[in-house]
Amino acid sequence: MARKIILDCDPGHDDAVAMILALGNPAIDLLGITTIGGNQTLAKVTRNAQSMLAVCGREDVPLHAGCVRPLVRALEVAPGIHGESGLDGVDLPEPTVAVAETHAVDFIIDTVMAHEPGTVTLVPTGPLTNIALAVRKEPRIAERVQEVVLMGGGYHTGNWSAVAEFNIIVDPEAAHIVMNEAWPLTMVGLDLTHQALVTADVEERIRAIGSECADVVLGLMAFFRQAYRENQGFDDPPVHDPCTVAYLIDPAVMTTRKVPLDVELRGELTVGMTVADFRVPPPADCTTQVAVDLDRERFWDLVIDAIAAVSRPRHSGATAENTTTEGATR
Amino acid sequence: MARKIILDCDPGHDDAVAMILALGNPAIDLLGITTIGGNQTLAKVTRNAQSMLAVCGREDVPLHAGCVRPLVRALEVAPGIHGESGLDGVDLPEPTVAVAETHAVDFIIDTVMAHEPGTVTLVPTGPLTNIALAVRKEPRIAERVQEVVLMGGGYHTGNWSAVAEFNIIVDPEAAHIVMNEAWPLTMVGLDLTHQALVTADVEERIRAIGSECADVVLGLMAFFRQAYRENQGFDDPPVHDPCTVAYLIDPAVMTTRKVPLDVELRGELTVGMTVADFRVPPPADCTTQVAVDLDRERFWDLVIDAIAAVSRPRHSGATAENTTTEGATR
Amino acid sequence: MARKIILDCDPGHDDAVAMILALGNPAIDLLGITTIGGNQTLAKVTRNAQSMLAVCGREDVPLHAGCVRPLVRALEVAPGIHGESGLDGVDLPEPTVAVAETHAVDFIIDTVMAHEPGTVTLVPTGPLTNIALAVRKEPRIAERVQEVVLMGGGYHTGNWSAVAEFNIIVDPEAAHIVMNEAWPLTMVGLDLTHQALVTADVEERIRAIGSECADVVLGLMAFFRQAYRENQGFDDPPVHDPCTVAYLIDPAVMTTRKVPLDVELRGELTVGMTVADFRVPPPADCTTQVAVDLDRERFWDLVIDAIAAVSRPRHSGATAENTTTEGATR
Amino acid sequence: MARKIILDCDPGHDDAVAMILALGNPAIDLLGITTIGGNQTLAKVTRNAQSMLAVCGREDVPLHAGCVRPLVRALEVAPGIHGESGLDGVDLPEPTVAVAETHAVDFIIDTVMAHEPGTVTLVPTGPLTNIALAVRKEPRIAERVQEVVLMGGGYHTGNWSAVAEFNIIVDPEAAHIVMNEAWPLTMVGLDLTHQALVTADVEERIRAIGSECADVVLGLMAFFRQAYRENQGFDDPPVHDPCTVAYLIDPAVMTTRKVPLDVELRGELTVGMTVADFRVPPPADCTTQVAVDLDRERFWDLVIDAIAAVSRPRHSGATAENTTTEGATR
Repeated sequence: MARKIILDCDPGHDDAVAMILALGNPAIDLLGITTIGGNQTLAKVTRNAQSMLAVCGREDVPLHAGCVRPLVRALEVAPGIHGESGLDGVDLPEPTVAVAETHAVDFIIDTVMAHEPGTVTLVPTGPLTNIALAVRKEPRIAERVQEVVLMGGGYHTGNWSAVAEFNIIVDPEAAHIVMNEAWPLTMVGLDLTHQALVTADVEERIRAIGSECADVVLGLMAFFRQAYRENQGFDDPPVHDPCTVAYLIDPAVMTTRKVPLDVELRGELTVGMTVADFRVPPPADCTTQVAVDLDRERFWDLVIDAIAAVSRPRHSGATAENTTTEGATR
Repeated sequence: MARKIILDCDPGHDDAVAMILALGNPAIDLLGITTIGGNQTLAKVTRNAQSMLAVCGREDVPLHAGCVRPLVRALEVAPGIHGESGLDGVDLPEPTVAVAETHAVDFIIDTVMAHEPGTVTLVPTGPLTNIALAVRKEPRIAERVQEVVLMGGGYHTGNWSAVAEFNIIVDPEAAHIVMNEAWPLTMVGLDLTHQALVTADVEERIRAIGSECADVVLGLMAFFRQAYRENQGFDDPPVHDPCTVAYLIDPAVMTTRKVPLDVELRGELTVGMTVADFRVPPPADCTTQVAVDLDRERFWDLVIDAIAAVSRPRHSGATAENTTTEGATR
Repeated sequence: MARKIILDCDPGHDDAVAMILALGNPAIDLLGITTIGGNQTLAKVTRNAQSMLAVCGREDVPLHAGCVRPLVRALEVAPGIHGESGLDGVDLPEPTVAVAETHAVDFIIDTVMAHEPGTVTLVPTGPLTNIALAVRKEPRIAERVQEVVLMGGGYHTGNWSAVAEFNIIVDPEAAHIVMNEAWPLTMVGLDLTHQALVTADVEERIRAIGSECADVVLGLMAFFRQAYRENQGFDDPPVHDPCTVAYLIDPAVMTTRKVPLDVELRGELTVGMTVADFRVPPPADCTTQVAVDLDRERFWDLVIDAIAAVSRPRHSGATAENTTTEGATR
Repeated sequence: MARKIILDCDPGHDDAVAMILALGNPAIDLLGITTIGGNQTLAKVTRNAQSMLAVCGREDVPLHAGCVRPLVRALEVAPGIHGESGLDGVDLPEPTVAVAETHAVDFIIDTVMAHEPGTVTLVPTGPLTNIALAVRKEPRIAERVQEVVLMGGGYHTGNWSAVAEFNIIVDPEAAHIVMNEAWPLTMVGLDLTHQALVTADVEERIRAIGSECADVVLGLMAFFRQAYRENQGFDDPPVHDPCTVAYLIDPAVMTTRKVPLDVELRGELTVGMTVADFRVPPPADCTTQVAVDLDRERFWDLVIDAIAAVSRPRHSGATAENTTTEGATR
């Protein structure tokens, strides 16, 4: 049975790939997408989510906008990584689906409470403001969700400070709330996602798909590569967010380790750090785990299959004849 | 025209007096009561609010329950001050009104957005979790409310630590959110409310009212006196919360001073302190002010009039004849 | 019997007045002066101390230089208040005494240990780095000094932040060390020293003395007035530091209140705040007190008498004949 | 030429091994030993240092006691790791050398200033209070020492909290001072020292030495093994401190990596963490490095050779004839 998930994201280049993976793999039942201010402003990332749904031709997935800013701190966006639009590198199509009326926080609450207990998984890939507000407004979701699988943090790796990752440091109070709830939680942090690098051969495989969606991904990755090179000193850019979805499709895509987790709120050098205590074996009731090692091949197979799966032939609308031809040759 | 307010409270002995003042003075149009875990658990303070509505015979006022706990920290309740029930000292009547379905956070948002801009005032007298969640979920309420008049904090006075007051230190992150929004905000803190002492002559005047409500207030104040004596070293107990409502009825009840305000979140000795910067004149765009001096006489006149106004004759059910007589003479 | 003191200072306009008071009043036996980087760099304030000893004609008082910087934080000096020299406003004479070889920290330790227990009082009027190092290097001085009477902090008043005073916030860790030792400690903070204002009539009385020292004080105060007006919004400048010495000469110069004291090290808004807990009566073993109310007249009498006492006639060197004459008329 | 070092330690089982290595290897010229309250109180660790000098028959090495407690925080000792004496597990001999008069802080300053610039290395293996006080009292030592090679901290490993090591968390302010001075500094942290495990074959090699010193080491390691098993979940105990001395004898004993270092002072979960920023290549002027990988064989060869080198034959004084015999049979 497909895993029912809500993807709470701030697209964002790697969020876009996470969307494609969630939309393109039959093991995932994407109940809805919620957006959160993070990589760019809420307005921009929500628009980007709309465009990505259009790219994937999926007008059936509900889209709900969430919070414009973190709980306590001012919103810090990441134009150096994701550009001014939050999804620089390609000309995205006009939205084909509207943003739903209901606030993301209520969509999350209502969806979790409407489904059977233990059947809905939350997949946050941006700052955790929406999830934190949801569980504070309706505490019963903590025991009703199946689990939370989030992209954020890192037990030995930081990117926005020496020891903190962007999604967490942008709203550390929200992360503190989410990490300290009783739900089963998997932190897919930088330790893992820095293994999910878009190498040249990965790009080659995506190019071979030959679809509009593949073109979009390639355009996004070209920008992402440049941004990561200039701002983070990476040769190949890491696609953090789809690792969460890949894990839900196939847990064998990564190894994990149970460990108590918490978030530092007060440190001068360490605010937003996800603190994992590896000193002793985790207690029996430990509900948190971290992602450790990625099976790169398995991961990229999933991503590339998904890109292919959501793909309509290139230039479909504009050149109907070609489309037919191309479609036939595939 | 009466001031439209939402009273966001955690009754609580002084919250109960604030309810009476809001219900018993025609200058206040009480749009609804929302509750928040604080002086006691959400369940207990909500039940207490129901009972106080029954005491006041006001089944028309909507009552909405809010958050069970603070944003980041664990809930700390105050049984040493308010007893195990949160309203120890009297046998409270059974509720006559149900708690509404809608969450307090949504009631606050919906009410503010449904009324004309600048016409609804929020009056929080407990931890600020509901208000913080409301403004994060719907940021537009910040410019739509008329103002926020809250009981909490203190610029030179603490009670739960050397420099912090209970309502703020229980959820300092929420207080930080509320104090840093752009709405006009009046902090009625301990500096002011420690002037609102229930002295013997005040009790005498309440006793002279001779009603069920007056009896309830007297019973509550007797417990409160004892608790404040034993736990805070006060001879007479201060009724903090009604000072907010009194100010809305008649601003002349207190002097105020414009001053920038903020909340300390990280201090080891000072977490939850409301930091007021008196060093220089406030900037022209300063939207915050603190309450300084109370006109005690004016304040108690308002409170005692309200107790009288909401009062049904004593022992109404038990002594039907007297009731009729008394009713006739009123 | 005169009170034996070590004056640990960073002259500084008000430090200079404290020096004059300590040198000019027979109730004080000034065992030595130690200097500390604060109002200006160590080199500058040490030079200023030398010059003030020359102004007062006191080559007999040992002068020891101490630490160049605070324990943990970078040194912040106060040129806006004390000018580039640390003692702007007058042309100070060349030093007539050398700086002693021994480090201030060792001079403090050696002096306290060499005298009878309970006979030496430490009077810090700058950042507390020297005192903190001394008591960490030789813990026995904590029980051997008579007491510590310091200028710094404020229980309800700040100047370098909303709630912190310069001497404390410059080296809060040192202040934390000093405030938490077991010695009797009097904090003469801004609450008190903002009452020690150099009003026009005070200046008039100083002018009437008609001496080189009086001229120096007048020149310093003219600069100080201007600096305090422009940087702190004061009409008349407060002379903080001599209040400590005045209290040792005559305790009746101020009222004090016993209260537990501590220093906030971690707060974002409150770092360097001296936290006094007034909620309940101080415990029996409380060793700390704060200065509350100044007897202005008594204070200024002491200061003005001291200025007169240390004074040599004006222009002594330049006009030998006049000097003789003037000397005869005195 | 031998490396001139001052060993600043708190023996301590692994400090004792560090002493032996410094005394027993000709590449080290041990100018003196200074002690600091840490693993146990200053009195106990100083006595332990005296006893170890007696064990090694080295009455020529000056021993200076330092600070009894950390700068800001209360001293926390480690009886669970080192026993009540700080060196439990053997009956240590009576001291044969006195503790010198001069304070450790002054011995450090005087020694560094008396030698040629760049010729004295500080080797702290306990809390950094003495070193911090020395550089604050005499800032010129910062540029005059050759380097600082300390045991403490860890870039990815903690033992006294999830992310902090004992020596640092006991006096984080001192560590902050030491790590932020401009001297070349090598942090030999838990990441490295947890590789220096006393395995059974190491013990066997020590046993084969057959000397009083070897017996003492074996007794100490037996206790240490038990303590580390029960308190830290280790099978074999790590001897942290001698890794510093081994590095000075032969840098090839470990790999190092240049990286900016700092110490967190304010974090709730992270106070005392040594924060290394590995995100980008270190700046050209980076003066700090961390120890990464240990060459176990090379390390143990050095330690075992030193134990043998300092060894007098077993029971040397008591049974002179046997000694000869035993010496012959070895």
